[in-house]
Amino acid sequence: MDSIKNVEILRIKGDNFNVEEDIVVKEYPFTIFINDVELITLLCSPTSLEYLALGFIYSEGLIDSLSNVKKITIDEDKGIGYMYLDKLNEFSNKFMGKRTITSGCGKGTIFYNVIDSFRSKKIEKPITVDIGSIKNLVKGFNKKSQLFIDTGGVHSCALCSTDGIIIFEEDIGRHNALDKIFGRALIENIDTRDKIILTSGRISSEILIKAAKRQVPVIVSRSAPTSLSVEMAEELGITLIGFARGEKMNIYTNFPNLNI
Amino acid sequence: MDSIKNVEILRIKGDNFNVEEDIVVKEYPFTIFINDVELITLLCSPTSLEYLALGFIYSEGLIDSLSNVKKITIDEDKGIGYMYLDKLNEFSNKFMGKRTITSGCGKGTIFYNVIDSFRSKKIEKPITVDIGSIKNLVKGFNKKSQLFIDTGGVHSCALCSTDGIIIFEEDIGRHNALDKIFGRALIENIDTRDKIILTSGRISSEILIKAAKRQVPVIVSRSAPTSLSVEMAEELGITLIGFARGEKMNIYTNFPNLNI
Repeated sequence: MDSIKNVEILRIKGDNFNVEEDIVVKEYPFTIFINDVELITLLCSPTSLEYLALGFIYSEGLIDSLSNVKKITIDEDKGIGYMYLDKLNEFSNKFMGKRTITSGCGKGTIFYNVIDSFRSKKIEKPITVDIGSIKNLVKGFNKKSQLFIDTGGVHSCALCSTDGIIIFEEDIGRHNALDKIFGRALIENIDTRDKIILTSGRISSEILIKAAKRQVPVIVSRSAPTSLSVEMAEELGITLIGFARGEKMNIYTNFPNLNI
Repeated sequence: MDSIKNVEILRIKGDNFNVEEDIVVKEYPFTIFINDVELITLLCSPTSLEYLALGFIYSEGLIDSLSNVKKITIDEDKGIGYMYLDKLNEFSNKFMGKRTITSGCGKGTIFYNVIDSFRSKKIEKPITVDIGSIKNLVKGFNKKSQLFIDTGGVHSCALCSTDGIIIFEEDIGRHNALDKIFGRALIENIDTRDKIILTSGRISSEILIKAAKRQVPVIVSRSAPTSLSVEMAEELGITLIGFARGEKMNIYTNFPNLNI
């Protein structure tokens, strides 16, 4: 499904005005069912829906690995993802039974608590970060973000090795873009524990927690981090980089051995 | 409480690197209790917490007016807002009993459905929009957004008449900033039905729905709207303006009588 929609706008420039064709980014309600029980409606971009559904329930702790998933069916027209799990783990049982959450928060995560961060484990495999590599990754990342350039309305996210971008996803929600990345990494059996996450969006505690759960040792953003994400990254041994633009970046935590 | 926190960063500029003091925007977990039952934890900026708590439950439909609220106590150190309501309305009873939602989505709204939009009433009092006034409001709005300029991490939101800004609030979450506006308007008994909302953030369906519930006839953003917000604004008789910057803006719906 297209990620954009044509609309007719009245464009004002100084004293001039014209009715013109323009595009806006599509916002698509996508409802996830687990074993025929409605779980949540995410407001997202209508792409990579299988990755999103899978990444979302993985981030939320409903599955521990791909082997828990028997079947995924996406009905794109109706905006529904049906997921069948072999058995619900303790965590999923806990809220599948008690809660029927029929609406989403648009950006993704609802279920986990800030306290989740303390359940996240410290990074087990720190990697060596080469600043030159980060700069190159950021350059490649910016080039790929065409939908943002067209509409100004989406966030990009990428999973990278130090050599280049491995997975790239976009979504109107920062959280969804990251869940798409992790869903796809799960399906393609890509180890996230020695990789780098690049994102166009701000790094809030929720983004940090999602990445920490996948043991990603380095997170790089074009935008700002929040105080809570800095504190968590410090604690968890994650190297957190913000305002990565061109030749500049700010490293907030776990300063790497510099190789400039 | 301060909205920013000092941190030590490693700043990279080309081949130079320095350890420097910098600031990041504070991300503050704020838990709302209704009649001693935990409702939600919002991740927000630690300012105007009374407005936020009030605006949030007003947006979610838990109260119909200020007269429903007996008492609000904010414990800033613990990050808790205790709200006592005289009686729970039908809507609040529905989820206060059945759900214990212990975590937030950071950007605000969890409870309402996209279908909510269809419950929103069409704007009853359309106002005449003067493009020159909008340009002036946007200029004043940009000048006020100092926290963003300092940290790159917050969204600004304002309630305006055609003459100027009446209420201005900031938050790390677009949704929270808007809830702060509506909470304060409720306390100060400001009618929102003939006003204009200005926001620095994108206009998604959730932002549109919050404004529609307060019968705001005009919404202006520095950023992009989504397809769903354009469709809803069209349907509800709201004038939706995006990319309002300097002398430029795009009008997406309910084109006003131009007075340029």
